[in-house]
Amino acid sequence: MKTGRLEAFSDGVLAIIITIMVLELKVPEDGTFQALNHLIPKFISYLLSFIYVGIYWNNHHHLFQIVEKVNGKILWANLTLLFFLSLIPFSTAWMGENHFEQNTVAVYGINLFLCAVSFNIVQKAAMDSEGKDSLIAKAIKNYTKEMASTALYLIGIAISFFYPKISLILFFTVAIIWLIPDRRIEKQVKH
Amino acid sequence: MKTGRLEAFSDGVLAIIITIMVLELKVPEDGTFQALNHLIPKFISYLLSFIYVGIYWNNHHHLFQIVEKVNGKILWANLTLLFFLSLIPFSTAWMGENHFEQNTVAVYGINLFLCAVSFNIVQKAAMDSEGKDSLIAKAIKNYTKEMASTALYLIGIAISFFYPKISLILFFTVAIIWLIPDRRIEKQVKH
Amino acid sequence: MKTGRLEAFSDGVLAIIITIMVLELKVPEDGTFQALNHLIPKFISYLLSFIYVGIYWNNHHHLFQIVEKVNGKILWANLTLLFFLSLIPFSTAWMGENHFEQNTVAVYGINLFLCAVSFNIVQKAAMDSEGKDSLIAKAIKNYTKEMASTALYLIGIAISFFYPKISLILFFTVAIIWLIPDRRIEKQVKH
Amino acid sequence: MKTGRLEAFSDGVLAIIITIMVLELKVPEDGTFQALNHLIPKFISYLLSFIYVGIYWNNHHHLFQIVEKVNGKILWANLTLLFFLSLIPFSTAWMGENHFEQNTVAVYGINLFLCAVSFNIVQKAAMDSEGKDSLIAKAIKNYTKEMASTALYLIGIAISFFYPKISLILFFTVAIIWLIPDRRIEKQVKH
Repeated sequence: MKTGRLEAFSDGVLAIIITIMVLELKVPEDGTFQALNHLIPKFISYLLSFIYVGIYWNNHHHLFQIVEKVNGKILWANLTLLFFLSLIPFSTAWMGENHFEQNTVAVYGINLFLCAVSFNIVQKAAMDSEGKDSLIAKAIKNYTKEMASTALYLIGIAISFFYPKISLILFFTVAIIWLIPDRRIEKQVKH
Repeated sequence: MKTGRLEAFSDGVLAIIITIMVLELKVPEDGTFQALNHLIPKFISYLLSFIYVGIYWNNHHHLFQIVEKVNGKILWANLTLLFFLSLIPFSTAWMGENHFEQNTVAVYGINLFLCAVSFNIVQKAAMDSEGKDSLIAKAIKNYTKEMASTALYLIGIAISFFYPKISLILFFTVAIIWLIPDRRIEKQVKH
Repeated sequence: MKTGRLEAFSDGVLAIIITIMVLELKVPEDGTFQALNHLIPKFISYLLSFIYVGIYWNNHHHLFQIVEKVNGKILWANLTLLFFLSLIPFSTAWMGENHFEQNTVAVYGINLFLCAVSFNIVQKAAMDSEGKDSLIAKAIKNYTKEMASTALYLIGIAISFFYPKISLILFFTVAIIWLIPDRRIEKQVKH
Repeated sequence: MKTGRLEAFSDGVLAIIITIMVLELKVPEDGTFQALNHLIPKFISYLLSFIYVGIYWNNHHHLFQIVEKVNGKILWANLTLLFFLSLIPFSTAWMGENHFEQNTVAVYGINLFLCAVSFNIVQKAAMDSEGKDSLIAKAIKNYTKEMASTALYLIGIAISFFYPKISLILFFTVAIIWLIPDRRIEKQVKH
C-alpha cells in the first residue's frame, strides 16, 4: 500500500482540526474592544495550538516523504495520532475558556504529550517496516529533540498545578524547538 | 471514469465526519475535573465512532485500490454509504448525550448496520463492474467477517432495549474484528 | 492552467458542504423517539440536499473530465457556483426548522435555481474556452434536461407560496432527472 | 521538498475557511422574510469574505504553479498566511453581527491587511528561494497592485472609525482589483 492516500487523509484531518479551532472564538454580541479583550486567553490558546498542529503537519509531511510503504501497524498508529490531535480543539478551548486554570493547562499538556508519544510510535512503526538500511533509519539516529520535548512536557504538566503560566511557557518552548522542519530527514532526501 | 476523484471526495467527507464529531464534546464552562467527568459517556461514544470511521476509511481505501473503473452504480452506492456515515456524528452525540439510554444505543446500532449494508452494496457493485476474473472477485470469496458482524449488529440492536451496555460491547467487538485491514485484498495486490 | 487544483478545491468545498449540513440536525436532549420525530422535516431536507450536492459533485466531476484548461472566467464561474452551493446548508436548515413553510420552500427553490444557473454558466465558459471542435462542445448539444429542470424549478418556486409540498415533490423530481451521470459526456470520453 | 502537499494542505484549509463562514448565518427560528432581512449585514459580510478567500486561493494557486521547491521559510510564511486567513470567519461574523459598527470594520480591515502582508512574505520567500533568473522573479517585477491595495487597506482602516461604510466600499474595491488572476504569472507560464 502506498503512502498517497494516507497522506491525503491525514492532511484533510489536520486541515479541519486547525480550522475548526477558530469556531471556539465565539463571536461577541457587541462591537466594543472590551468584548474582544475577553477573547485574549482563547486567542493565545488558539495561536499555540495552531503552531502545534502546523508542526505536526510539517513533521508528518517530512516523515512520509521518506517512507515508501504503509502497513496495518503504521496505519493504526497514524489513526491514533489523528485521534489525539483531534482532541486538541477541545483541550485548547477548555484552557482558553477557563483562562489557563491549573487543571485545564494540565489536561492540555497531557494532550500534547499523548500526541508526541503517538507520533513517535508512528515513526517507530515506519522504521520497523522500512528496515535498517532505509533512509528513515539513517535519518533518525538520535532523539535529542524527542527527549528534550518529552522532558519539557512532563515538567510542564507537573508544574501546571502550581504555576500554570510557566507550563505554558514550557509548551511554547517545545513548539519553538520543533518550528524548524526536521533537518535529519532533509539531509537524507538530498543524498 | 477513474477512481481518483471518487477516492479524494470520499476521503474529504470521511476526514470531516471523523473530525466534526469532536465538536459535540461541548467545552465545559468551569475548569474542574468533575466537569470533565460528565463528558465521559460522550468521550467513549466519540472513541468508538472514531474507530468505526477509521475502519471505513481503511476498508474503502483497500477496496478502491483494486477497483479500476467507476460507473454510475458504484458512484451512487458510494454516496449512499457516505450518507449513512454522515449520520454517525449525530447518532454518536445523541447516544453520548443520553448516557447510552436504550433507544439511543438502538439507533446507533441501526446506523452502524446501515453503513455496513451500504459498504457491502458498494463492494457488490464494484465486483459486478469488474467481472468474474478481476482481482476483487478473487479477493472477496468468503464473507465470514461480513456475516459475523451483521449478526452482532442485529443482536446488539435487539438487546439494546434491555441491556444497552452489552450492545455497546458487541459493537466494540465488531470494530475489533475489522481493525485489521482486509488481508483478502492485500493478498491479491501482492500477486 | 490545468484543472487539477480547481477540481481538488471544489471537491474540498463540496465535501464540507455535504457534511456540515448534518450539524443542523441538532442533537435532542432526551433519548425518546418523540424527540427524533421532531427532526423528521430536518432529516427530509437534509436527505434532499445531500442528493443535490451529490449530483453537483457528480456532474462537476464529469464536466471537468473533458475540460483541459482553466481560464479566469471558468475559475470565477466555478467560485460563483460554489458560493450558491455553500448557501444550501442554510436554506436547507431554514426549511427543515420551519417544517416546509411557504417562504422557506420558495427560498430553497431559488437557491437550487441559482445553483443550476451557475452550473450552466460554468459549462458555457468551459465550452467557449475549449472551442467548437472540443469534446465538450460535441457532448453538450441538446439542453433537454437543463430546460426541463429550469421549468420545474420555476414552477416549484411559484407554487411554493400555495402548495409548498408540491414544490418539494417537483424538486425531488429534478433530483431524480439528474441522478444518472451525464451520459452525453460519458459517450464523448469513450470515443 | 515539492510543492504538492503544501498546496493540498492549503487548499484544504482554504476550502474549510470559505465554507464554515456560512455557519455564522444562524438559521432564523421563524419562516418570515423579516427574519431573513435581519441577516442581510451578515450576508454581505459573508459575500465579501467569500470573494476574498476565493482571491487568495486563486493567487496562491498561481504563485505555487511557478514555485518549484518549498523550504522551511516558505512553509512557515504559508502557515502564517493560513493563520490570518483562518481569523476571517471570526472578523466577518463579528462585523456582520454588529451591522458594520466602526470597531468591527476596523478589525476586519486589519485582518485583511495582515493577510495581504503575509501573502507578500510568502511571495518574497519564494522569490528568494527560486533565485533571480527564476520564472517567479521575472513574473513579479512591479508591485502596483500590491501598493494600491495596501494604501486602500490603510485608508479603509483609518476611515472606519468615522465612516465604516466607505471603508467597506474600499475593501470591495481592493477585491475587484484582485478579481482577475495574476496575469504577470500567466505570462511567464506561457513562455
